[in-house]
Amino acid sequence: MNYTSFFSEQSKASFQNEPPGEWMPNIPNDCIRLSSGYPDPQLVPVQEIDQAVHDLLTKEQDLPLHYLGTPKMDQLKSQITKHLNKRHISLQESELLVTAGACQAIDLISRVFMDRDTVVAIEKPTYMEALEIFKNYTSHFVEIPIDDQGMDTEQFEKMLMERKKNAQPLPKMVYTIPTFHNPTGTTMPVERRHQLMQLASEYDFLIIEDHAYGDLYFDELPPPLKSLDKEGRVLHVGSLSKIVAPGLRIGWIATTETLIQKLYWFKKDLDHPFLQAVMSTYLESYSIAEQSESLRLVYKEKAETMTRALELYMPEEVTWFYPDGGYFVWIQIDGVDTTKLLTTATENGVSYIPGEFFFLNREEGKSYLRLSYSYESKEQIEKGIKLLADVIKNNNKA
Amino acid sequence: MNYTSFFSEQSKASFQNEPPGEWMPNIPNDCIRLSSGYPDPQLVPVQEIDQAVHDLLTKEQDLPLHYLGTPKMDQLKSQITKHLNKRHISLQESELLVTAGACQAIDLISRVFMDRDTVVAIEKPTYMEALEIFKNYTSHFVEIPIDDQGMDTEQFEKMLMERKKNAQPLPKMVYTIPTFHNPTGTTMPVERRHQLMQLASEYDFLIIEDHAYGDLYFDELPPPLKSLDKEGRVLHVGSLSKIVAPGLRIGWIATTETLIQKLYWFKKDLDHPFLQAVMSTYLESYSIAEQSESLRLVYKEKAETMTRALELYMPEEVTWFYPDGGYFVWIQIDGVDTTKLLTTATENGVSYIPGEFFFLNREEGKSYLRLSYSYESKEQIEKGIKLLADVIKNNNKA
Repeated sequence: MNYTSFFSEQSKASFQNEPPGEWMPNIPNDCIRLSSGYPDPQLVPVQEIDQAVHDLLTKEQDLPLHYLGTPKMDQLKSQITKHLNKRHISLQESELLVTAGACQAIDLISRVFMDRDTVVAIEKPTYMEALEIFKNYTSHFVEIPIDDQGMDTEQFEKMLMERKKNAQPLPKMVYTIPTFHNPTGTTMPVERRHQLMQLASEYDFLIIEDHAYGDLYFDELPPPLKSLDKEGRVLHVGSLSKIVAPGLRIGWIATTETLIQKLYWFKKDLDHPFLQAVMSTYLESYSIAEQSESLRLVYKEKAETMTRALELYMPEEVTWFYPDGGYFVWIQIDGVDTTKLLTTATENGVSYIPGEFFFLNREEGKSYLRLSYSYESKEQIEKGIKLLADVIKNNNKA
Repeated sequence: MNYTSFFSEQSKASFQNEPPGEWMPNIPNDCIRLSSGYPDPQLVPVQEIDQAVHDLLTKEQDLPLHYLGTPKMDQLKSQITKHLNKRHISLQESELLVTAGACQAIDLISRVFMDRDTVVAIEKPTYMEALEIFKNYTSHFVEIPIDDQGMDTEQFEKMLMERKKNAQPLPKMVYTIPTFHNPTGTTMPVERRHQLMQLASEYDFLIIEDHAYGDLYFDELPPPLKSLDKEGRVLHVGSLSKIVAPGLRIGWIATTETLIQKLYWFKKDLDHPFLQAVMSTYLESYSIAEQSESLRLVYKEKAETMTRALELYMPEEVTWFYPDGGYFVWIQIDGVDTTKLLTTATENGVSYIPGEFFFLNREEGKSYLRLSYSYESKEQIEKGIKLLADVIKNNNKA
């Protein structure tokens, strides 16, 4: 049967894109996974989550297994709100919506704000999953270049002026990962943050601030855009995926109460009470701050191991940014197609994500790749970088 | 700040509706909850789920707590597929999509198929949550009357002929709960099912078959529409919410592989691997068939307790349908506004859901109410019906 006439106009437009997840490279199991954006398996609190489930079900019995959940869901909101307050985001619980991970947050925001002709400004490069979600909603993007200090707000201002002058449609939303950017690992300095907020006011756009890696700062956390937001233009998206465990799917949107109500409109029937209650029970014993404190030290060391190994083993034509937090190091290899190189790399036992998948126009990403130091041990990271350096050197000879 | 200019056209249209969940009556805690569509708390396998989590995490450690989950997710697909095969739905695993409950299933289907001007045929009355979701997508409904044998397919055929004759747009989708209908408890006989399938073919529409209560048959399960579907027109929506626990949010869509791929398009980033792995682990020890077997006997007895009490205590002007499975008894009280009556009822210690919330045009539901025998014990059910009968009798005198 031919279903074409049954599809909605919106989904027909989405189906013009490449199927979701097609970018995910197929990595053999025995590789050193510098491709993986997962937390270090050693740091996932498996026994503690098991215990939290047990405590919750012993105390509340069937209550958290019903549709509407338990008072723990409000408690989770309170725990997250208090944590954000510590991060200089002053927030009421009515200004927070708990979501099934940052991805549901991004999907909900897209649903509320984006039509097929909405112009969305994204960073170049940007998080491929977010891009995939946005492309389900709109086909119109403005790309803002990134340098070693994150989004180039000067460039962005010029682009906005140019578009205004030419009567081109202006972006209604800007999606940014200002802190420990995925994939580049860069962080916007505070001056750029202020400039972006000023542009938002001047050119009348909203900002989606993806703060998924924010708690994993090595030395200090720059002020979140949300903390600088006087007009209610920032939708701050956070997650406990990197701090506790991705599989529990706990994320959030922090924004004005007006917008929370609108976002909840489409969230109501897509809630996940049990996992929220489990997370809240877990956080009774281990606070977010405490958790992230211990993770930060480990990831800082792992990042240093990776960048030292890069310095030691990589040939001259390879360059990278030094991260101040998060999971990633962004690499450029002049004149190399990193997608083609991946086959050789995995054959030699090391993986990465080719740069092209983080670009709207893939061609522009061919010479980049994303390395992650989150998943593997320090020993494996060093070994992996050495393997990758050899692959690059041999490729040059060939 | 005024956000109106930022909202998408689609969400602006949704915001014209009443906010979601507004229908939910506020029920005092000490009421006998004949309003509640929850499983019997005694039948929620709390310890067993706790054990499943423990077994899963002991065996697989951090694996199910990552994004992509574990082989258990495929195992869950296999467990559900095998169960559906037993229900005479012949199905490959590629024809199944696991969702976060039936509500995510309905939302995904709406997203793939419905534009603002799509005509959707629904039963009158129908499940209020589904109606709420559909209204987020479209404003055009055709309502098919229900009698004691579920959807009146004769009437529906006449409506379709009429619309065709008048060159009115025909429904592209039909949403039906053919088996143990919510809220009416009715079940479509097999002849009507065949007629509906024939109409689908003749008038070229797809069918959303909501089968959430299907496994809770008292004596026999009529053939699901999906089992009669030769052309690939049925999207069969199921759930383990009533069989295991709603809070685990495990539902599914069973349909053709082509449609599964399209539905997955929007599902990919909204997955919940951990709960799928927990459910699969649970089902290793307790099969769906086994589970539903034991539940059926309990609910059958509770339904009998309720209908016997209705016969015993209700005044003459009260009528109802006898259910053959599921959770609900649908009541009509001639000349009474059941929404107004609810205040008196809860003051007297018993609750129900007023009928109006199950109707697109609420006025038409004023004299109806939905009772549920699922949540309370047999003693409480009898007591609750007696209380409600007294409330109705006193109301008549007033």
